[in-house]
Amino acid sequence: MKIAGKHYQTIWVKEDDNSVLQVIDQRFLPFEFRIENLSTFEDVFTAIKDMHIRGAPLIGVAAAFGIYLALVKYNQQIPLDEYLLSAAEKLLSARPTAINIAHAVDKQLEAVNKFKTPDKKITAAFDNALKILEAEKENCRKIGENGLPVIEKISRQKKGDTVNILTHCNAGWLACIDYGTATAPIYMAYDKGINVHVWVDETRPRNQGAKLTAWELQQHGVPFTIITDNAGGHVMQHGLVDLVLVGSDRTTINGDVANKIGTYLKALAAKDNNIPFYVALPSSSIDWNIENGIDEIPIEQRASDEITHIQGIKNGKIENVMITGDKFPARNFGFDVTPAKFVSGLITERGICEAKKSSIFSLFPEKFKNSAK
Amino acid sequence: MKIAGKHYQTIWVKEDDNSVLQVIDQRFLPFEFRIENLSTFEDVFTAIKDMHIRGAPLIGVAAAFGIYLALVKYNQQIPLDEYLLSAAEKLLSARPTAINIAHAVDKQLEAVNKFKTPDKKITAAFDNALKILEAEKENCRKIGENGLPVIEKISRQKKGDTVNILTHCNAGWLACIDYGTATAPIYMAYDKGINVHVWVDETRPRNQGAKLTAWELQQHGVPFTIITDNAGGHVMQHGLVDLVLVGSDRTTINGDVANKIGTYLKALAAKDNNIPFYVALPSSSIDWNIENGIDEIPIEQRASDEITHIQGIKNGKIENVMITGDKFPARNFGFDVTPAKFVSGLITERGICEAKKSSIFSLFPEKFKNSAK
Repeated sequence: MKIAGKHYQTIWVKEDDNSVLQVIDQRFLPFEFRIENLSTFEDVFTAIKDMHIRGAPLIGVAAAFGIYLALVKYNQQIPLDEYLLSAAEKLLSARPTAINIAHAVDKQLEAVNKFKTPDKKITAAFDNALKILEAEKENCRKIGENGLPVIEKISRQKKGDTVNILTHCNAGWLACIDYGTATAPIYMAYDKGINVHVWVDETRPRNQGAKLTAWELQQHGVPFTIITDNAGGHVMQHGLVDLVLVGSDRTTINGDVANKIGTYLKALAAKDNNIPFYVALPSSSIDWNIENGIDEIPIEQRASDEITHIQGIKNGKIENVMITGDKFPARNFGFDVTPAKFVSGLITERGICEAKKSSIFSLFPEKFKNSAK
Repeated sequence: MKIAGKHYQTIWVKEDDNSVLQVIDQRFLPFEFRIENLSTFEDVFTAIKDMHIRGAPLIGVAAAFGIYLALVKYNQQIPLDEYLLSAAEKLLSARPTAINIAHAVDKQLEAVNKFKTPDKKITAAFDNALKILEAEKENCRKIGENGLPVIEKISRQKKGDTVNILTHCNAGWLACIDYGTATAPIYMAYDKGINVHVWVDETRPRNQGAKLTAWELQQHGVPFTIITDNAGGHVMQHGLVDLVLVGSDRTTINGDVANKIGTYLKALAAKDNNIPFYVALPSSSIDWNIENGIDEIPIEQRASDEITHIQGIKNGKIENVMITGDKFPARNFGFDVTPAKFVSGLITERGICEAKKSSIFSLFPEKFKNSAK
């Protein structure tokens, strides 16, 4: 997507140096636009863990490049298998809820294992990381195409009046490589001239909605309004929302959806007000091994200072201020699980399916044999 | 309740001067404890509108004193009736959702009209404001007594294990004169030695939970943990909440409850997880003239800079920082309505009733004839 008219992805290989990745450092948006160089496995690990980059599809791609950078620096002090396994486990520990890291790392290890010499392994890891990147970009484009009819239908029902879409957190292009998941159909609808307006949930504690989604939409020209996370039920009760559209960090084969904390509350409100609640996700966010999201998806807990402190800007200077009393205890749950029964549909790169096993496997039949259950 | 061991109310008449009110200025808590003098009607109006003081019972009492202070300054330039009506309307406009201002102002005008001479009117207004204050204080104490058995029952069911109570916003003693509404049973349970722990919703945008409720509970020694407004559904899904207990700014005779924005989302989550959802309120928060909360309760919209900016503290200095991009559009809905069907019970000064007309009027039979419907 474009920033001030220039096309960007969230992550790319440095033009003149294949051993350096470049990413948009999302910690400073919308206040400052910074590009960060990631030259080592440790750089990638830190960028994922400390959320310089975030979003399930993006951290999956970054993890793939992490394996590549680990290989580049391999010094033969320990066996390669052991070395790569340790790198993989470290990446998985960085953000435990999204399944995309696991999928990307698995694909990388498989690609690397096909070759014997170090050089060929490195080349394979690089090529495969790029392949994963391009596939994720294409997935998002297709999610846009597949989700567009949902918005078009509402637009027709409203005779061209504004379609009001509520989204939570950032499932935009900043969370992916390009286009976004939840935002892909929105951008496509907007580009086609459909009247859309987005209610952007602020998304505490890290405010990815108010900071990232709002900024993305503004850059693209899509009308939006920020509301507090608390306000979603009220706007739904009053007919101000036609569609809820969110992303996912991990979806089970039963259709339970882990996504940013607070998503479940919006799903409940959508259900109570008969508003369609769609989840847009590439299949790389589906965990083919589990069924029950509430019991089986690990929910990341992050540091409590993400709640007790906040980053803002004053007189052009980025500041971190404490917004509670000193040492007030806080707990920071990063995700919640929306049970499948509240999900109207899953918008994937292969089309839209119901949030249930038979429907998911009808889109991804080749996964059926891989599933344990 | 006590602050650092000394007993305070939120509002009182200055010890040596009946024409000055004193209030705890809540804008600076928990960072600074400040007492503000209110000497004129305008002072009271500003303190209510700009939320130096807030909470339905408290602003009702303050409005009563506002009418008294208006009378003190009456200069006979316009007829008294007109003058008082204009003051009353101004107070009502300051915070449109809570019904307590209307009730308090009505009672004041009634008390004043019983007398003819200016001096007697002033005395009547002062005495009546004090009477309203004392009644509200007593209401909260009784709400505590009436709500205590709800907590005691859960404690018995859990064989003395910690009772986890989730609350939203501040329905504590800072919102009232003393004790609080939602917090009154909690303080009473704690004082009786029952193990309680409170999940304190941060309560964006003004963070009354993280700032005021947390501070209150800390002063009293009650264990608590701050969570984001987004996290309530997750903690309920995982068995970490035994009871939701909130206040109300206006409750209809059908039992629909207007309260701080986001309350409705917690009610939905409580319902979905079979957790009791109680609303604690004095009858001064009941609007005896309306039935349907969603259609009939006016929802205050406040300035968007309450969303785009936030107050925090850094190096001991209170700072206001911008937390979105420059001029990002935001809408700030102050309240939402929880339909009666999600309310397990109303805890009032007369006891607990169901959130339905017959049950509410069985506790307040004298109101039945006053109700239009």
